[in-house]
Amino acid sequence: MSSSLLEARRELSLANRIVANEGVIDAFGHVSMRHPDNPGRYLLSRSRAPELVAPEDFIEYDIESQPIRDPGVGQYSERVIHGEIYKARPDVNAVVPSHSPAVIPFGVTRVPMRPVMHTGSFLYVGVPVWEIREAGGATDMLVRNGTLGKSLAETLGDKPVVLMRGHGDVVVGPTVQRAVIRAVYTEVNARLQTIALGLGGPIEYISDEEGALRDKAGGDESRAWDLWKTKALGK
Amino acid sequence: MSSSLLEARRELSLANRIVANEGVIDAFGHVSMRHPDNPGRYLLSRSRAPELVAPEDFIEYDIESQPIRDPGVGQYSERVIHGEIYKARPDVNAVVPSHSPAVIPFGVTRVPMRPVMHTGSFLYVGVPVWEIREAGGATDMLVRNGTLGKSLAETLGDKPVVLMRGHGDVVVGPTVQRAVIRAVYTEVNARLQTIALGLGGPIEYISDEEGALRDKAGGDESRAWDLWKTKALGK
Amino acid sequence: MSSSLLEARRELSLANRIVANEGVIDAFGHVSMRHPDNPGRYLLSRSRAPELVAPEDFIEYDIESQPIRDPGVGQYSERVIHGEIYKARPDVNAVVPSHSPAVIPFGVTRVPMRPVMHTGSFLYVGVPVWEIREAGGATDMLVRNGTLGKSLAETLGDKPVVLMRGHGDVVVGPTVQRAVIRAVYTEVNARLQTIALGLGGPIEYISDEEGALRDKAGGDESRAWDLWKTKALGK
Amino acid sequence: MSSSLLEARRELSLANRIVANEGVIDAFGHVSMRHPDNPGRYLLSRSRAPELVAPEDFIEYDIESQPIRDPGVGQYSERVIHGEIYKARPDVNAVVPSHSPAVIPFGVTRVPMRPVMHTGSFLYVGVPVWEIREAGGATDMLVRNGTLGKSLAETLGDKPVVLMRGHGDVVVGPTVQRAVIRAVYTEVNARLQTIALGLGGPIEYISDEEGALRDKAGGDESRAWDLWKTKALGK
Repeated sequence: MSSSLLEARRELSLANRIVANEGVIDAFGHVSMRHPDNPGRYLLSRSRAPELVAPEDFIEYDIESQPIRDPGVGQYSERVIHGEIYKARPDVNAVVPSHSPAVIPFGVTRVPMRPVMHTGSFLYVGVPVWEIREAGGATDMLVRNGTLGKSLAETLGDKPVVLMRGHGDVVVGPTVQRAVIRAVYTEVNARLQTIALGLGGPIEYISDEEGALRDKAGGDESRAWDLWKTKALGK
Repeated sequence: MSSSLLEARRELSLANRIVANEGVIDAFGHVSMRHPDNPGRYLLSRSRAPELVAPEDFIEYDIESQPIRDPGVGQYSERVIHGEIYKARPDVNAVVPSHSPAVIPFGVTRVPMRPVMHTGSFLYVGVPVWEIREAGGATDMLVRNGTLGKSLAETLGDKPVVLMRGHGDVVVGPTVQRAVIRAVYTEVNARLQTIALGLGGPIEYISDEEGALRDKAGGDESRAWDLWKTKALGK
Repeated sequence: MSSSLLEARRELSLANRIVANEGVIDAFGHVSMRHPDNPGRYLLSRSRAPELVAPEDFIEYDIESQPIRDPGVGQYSERVIHGEIYKARPDVNAVVPSHSPAVIPFGVTRVPMRPVMHTGSFLYVGVPVWEIREAGGATDMLVRNGTLGKSLAETLGDKPVVLMRGHGDVVVGPTVQRAVIRAVYTEVNARLQTIALGLGGPIEYISDEEGALRDKAGGDESRAWDLWKTKALGK
Repeated sequence: MSSSLLEARRELSLANRIVANEGVIDAFGHVSMRHPDNPGRYLLSRSRAPELVAPEDFIEYDIESQPIRDPGVGQYSERVIHGEIYKARPDVNAVVPSHSPAVIPFGVTRVPMRPVMHTGSFLYVGVPVWEIREAGGATDMLVRNGTLGKSLAETLGDKPVVLMRGHGDVVVGPTVQRAVIRAVYTEVNARLQTIALGLGGPIEYISDEEGALRDKAGGDESRAWDLWKTKALGK
């Protein structure tokens, strides 16, 4: 195993624990990353709650979401979400589908998610809602096959976040750290937007121009990562 | 004691701790299971907060909620809830009455609980509200006798969940794990439905067809159970 | 020191920690009890956050809220709340003033607190709101003298709970355990009533008759106490 | 290093941990203090999440927010907030900018923050909202230069708190302890005001006269500080 792969497994395991510890993900979400040495593959845990995932739990998948080797363990039934997004989005190297709780109400109402604070400013490009019924009619609500996964990736388009109606959201990023930070602040922003809407009256959202400037400036991701790592491991 | 009974006691003790640790139950709920070797009996803890229940705390009851042996310890005054439901529902092997906090407001208003996310999709069949006054007039709000218990079981009908006005809810399942998972996601769904209703406008609930397909597909219960077990024991 | 006094100090110290651990009280509330051997005296901690209070922190006060002996340590400036209530209410043996968070909004609006669940049914007699301005004009909002304390006790009347506008509430009981349980469920009920009011429509509150029957029946207080004790000490 | 400086570093490190532990600050806020021996300087941590800050992390800055010595480590990009406020407000010796979550919705709506409880009574003087667009047009939302910092300090004026639209707030005080207590109760008050507004109807806020009397009386800060210290260090 290459040293970059070893390091990737450690970081991805930590990412799984962080999103759980920060309240974004429950027992049923996942965090994947594109393979560091082979962009046609990705790493995803065997079927296990993210909070319990360890470096040795990751399975290598090809872009069609087939395991490279027989894993001999349970696999996530919705792994096509990851494969289809990696296929459609060469710029994406990490994918986080979850049941992010504050986000779910925005997926079942017609209220659009918009950024109320600068840490959520990446949402300024808009947050599309994917309606699984339009892609597959009545289903058991899981993204179980490539057709559904492809449709979801199309609704995501070039955005950082897509909501899944009655299910949760998928957050993507160019790196694992960026995707995790986006996932956390998508949840935080949803919570605060809900409160602001409850207060009523016009809301001054982050403008497109502000969002674009914030995106361009980048952020000090390590500050959050170091804190969340300490907290996730200290539990 | 049979090995299945020993195993049942361990699992039921864990179930009690999990529902407490996941915020569904306070000091006053219970989790019971049908006796693994005798469908005419059930196991329920002596009078104790669920978070403190240990395998040796369980008392064997007959279907009329009388202890098989003098337990010599305090008993739950509302145990008829369990007995009457096991009597009316041969398909049910676990019963979880609780003060599930997010659920209580739905029991005192006329807003029906409906599933906003797929993990709560089993609610698609409807969530009846039991009005204790209709069964027993003015009471001290506790289900203290067979008449009240039978009325509650009738309102539950063939559903997975029934609300008790001004009190809480009762969640049932074919297994302890299924009942626990339903109890947790009934609470989560209530919380998210409340937020979605606050956002306003039409809500796209899980449809009957989607709910039925989800029920049929089943879920990966062990993923949640393993996580909740780790967290409940780690406390 | 009598053994009943030693035991009282231990229980009262635990009560202070429990109300803090259950989220009712912040750094600035208190829990007192009437002296077990002398009804004209009461026990209250020196000036210290309840979560840190130990058995040796209690000071003995006479009914005029003067310390029996020079305590040589800081005292709570609002101790007259306790003295005036013990004076006016021979049936009361424990007093819990706090900044119970979910309760405060009910003190500054005109929405009356009413019981939505049976564990809060003792509120059926009504929850008066004390307006400090009516008793003392503009103040610094603290109950610093006997005149204010007496006025507060008068507004409490024969009830279990009184709200203080812009400040918090005072919960009383015949025993320390009962007062603590009432303080916790006053907070819980306020939270759930707020949610129910947000859902809208008519609310089916606990009726007067149900409240009276519940009060008469009493509850299994030890079940909650044992749990909260374990959690408060385990921290 | 003078003993007052050593003590200042210890207290400031603790203040950083407390505001994080009490839920006011996430990975991206800071707490600074004016240099105890030189009012033209201030102490601020190197770029690090407040919950992780240690006494040795502090950098000395001059009033123009330039480090006295090359720190050789990362610095907060928004440190001008501190410098410009220390320049404009000789009475201020501690500054706490944060993403205080309950506060943010008040910065993006037109609902003014007002005190609903006496622990938030210092807000009676009004809570101005700073609109970064008026000072600098479209930005990346960060207070990156002296012009923005000066504008923010002007909007703060002689008040204890200023909101930053789409960002958070800045709380100041004559001492580190007072600033921390104000930061905590600004967050608590925002949460409770939001709930009170949701209940509807007229709200009886802390009056100007009450706020002034409360300010004059001062509070028992050590009671909160001792509790929060125990909790922050016990984690």
